[in-house]
Amino acid sequence: MRIIGEKLNGTLKKTGAAIQARDVKFIQELAQAQVQAGAYWLDVNAGTHPDREKEDFCWLIKTVQEVVDTPLCLDSASPEVLAAGLEIVKGQVLLNSTTAETEKAKAVIPLAAKYNCQLIGLTLVDTGMPATADERFEIAKQIVDQAKAAGIPAENIYIDPLVRAISAEPEQGRELLNATWLISHKLAPVNVVYGLSNISFGLPGRPLLNRTLLAMAMASGLGAAIMDPTDKHIMAVLRASEALLGQDEFCMNYMTAFRDGSLG
Amino acid sequence: MRIIGEKLNGTLKKTGAAIQARDVKFIQELAQAQVQAGAYWLDVNAGTHPDREKEDFCWLIKTVQEVVDTPLCLDSASPEVLAAGLEIVKGQVLLNSTTAETEKAKAVIPLAAKYNCQLIGLTLVDTGMPATADERFEIAKQIVDQAKAAGIPAENIYIDPLVRAISAEPEQGRELLNATWLISHKLAPVNVVYGLSNISFGLPGRPLLNRTLLAMAMASGLGAAIMDPTDKHIMAVLRASEALLGQDEFCMNYMTAFRDGSLG
Repeated sequence: MRIIGEKLNGTLKKTGAAIQARDVKFIQELAQAQVQAGAYWLDVNAGTHPDREKEDFCWLIKTVQEVVDTPLCLDSASPEVLAAGLEIVKGQVLLNSTTAETEKAKAVIPLAAKYNCQLIGLTLVDTGMPATADERFEIAKQIVDQAKAAGIPAENIYIDPLVRAISAEPEQGRELLNATWLISHKLAPVNVVYGLSNISFGLPGRPLLNRTLLAMAMASGLGAAIMDPTDKHIMAVLRASEALLGQDEFCMNYMTAFRDGSLG
Repeated sequence: MRIIGEKLNGTLKKTGAAIQARDVKFIQELAQAQVQAGAYWLDVNAGTHPDREKEDFCWLIKTVQEVVDTPLCLDSASPEVLAAGLEIVKGQVLLNSTTAETEKAKAVIPLAAKYNCQLIGLTLVDTGMPATADERFEIAKQIVDQAKAAGIPAENIYIDPLVRAISAEPEQGRELLNATWLISHKLAPVNVVYGLSNISFGLPGRPLLNRTLLAMAMASGLGAAIMDPTDKHIMAVLRASEALLGQDEFCMNYMTAFRDGSLG
């Protein structure tokens, strides 16, 4: 399982304030802590303020890359901001994200191809957000076809089937897991990625629901997750899941983490 | 998810001692505690002492049925002991268990048919224990065919695909989950049942591995589990899994359990 560290995100209160204050120490320590805890990529998102997102984004990238070599996941809703980040970033990038929406795909897929990025594709279309596993799978196929046509190899494509809250739609957990299975098995080597926390919106005990979903999603083929690797409780489920699924040779990572006390 | 409460088992040290001492209070409180915590069946197993198992078994059944109406899962390796229990037990029984082994099936399947039992079938054959999901599935089909031929309806059959330790065979988690999916989907309405704890034999942090497997197994189609319903940590994962899989209308059981503090 590849972890995308989620904490360098300007929409989070503390990170947003640190970006505005140009607090180098806070940002760099947050980067290092996530790498130390097992992040494979670091998501960088400068928040959503249109006047300053581009400048903040470039500052954030530079500041993080002064202290870690971990590849970045460049995260913005704006193709223009992503392009600015790609100009200055070092190393291969996971680009977050395109959709199957016409305008978005036209802007982002060529960027991903030009800079040889790995690419996250959200299963959104111009007519909206899919509800069923089959709808998600069909949209995933569209994104994969478009990305491949632009020269992006299948193994560099990460599909996010979009996690929806079970409090509002109780069938959405099952649909999500079915979509995870369909995309990861029928479109392999295309990968499946998501953040877990939307699943539990509106319910008590959200961390319990999120980490329980992680185990189920990994069993269904989830290959990467946007999450907090410094959260010992979710890391415990992640390491246990890897051991259970034969993704951890001789259970070594699990046993090491257990013994050094890094599992909650 | 149907819980088979596992604690009235004479191979457990305290329960075994209570059976020998004819400690009615201990046994009855253990029965009531498991029912209170959500057991759908209570497993009763009098231990393995050949000279006294039958007498102990009948005492255990009577003692438990004095205080609870919850159906029992009669658990013995001996068809003769099972037959003695069936003579005196009240209510429908889950019979634990047959295998596909010739002698065992010949003895137990007719008993299950005669007493209109639900029946657990372990995927064991005369030549040994299967390793792959496909082997388990083939043996499950044999058991289902034999049970149906004896007049037991498919929905009353519970297949145990046998949990093996990942410490010795790292691929056994994946094989088990695949077997769970195959049996529960391709042989529906046949059910899948197992105890979880063998998976983690030889590893540290066994409760974490066991409850993580529970989430994965439920997502794969596990319909019943032999477990301790008074363990708040595993119940937390069970209630969260039911909510995530749409098996808990409006997440009511999850929210009730969360609010009354019965989740660990």
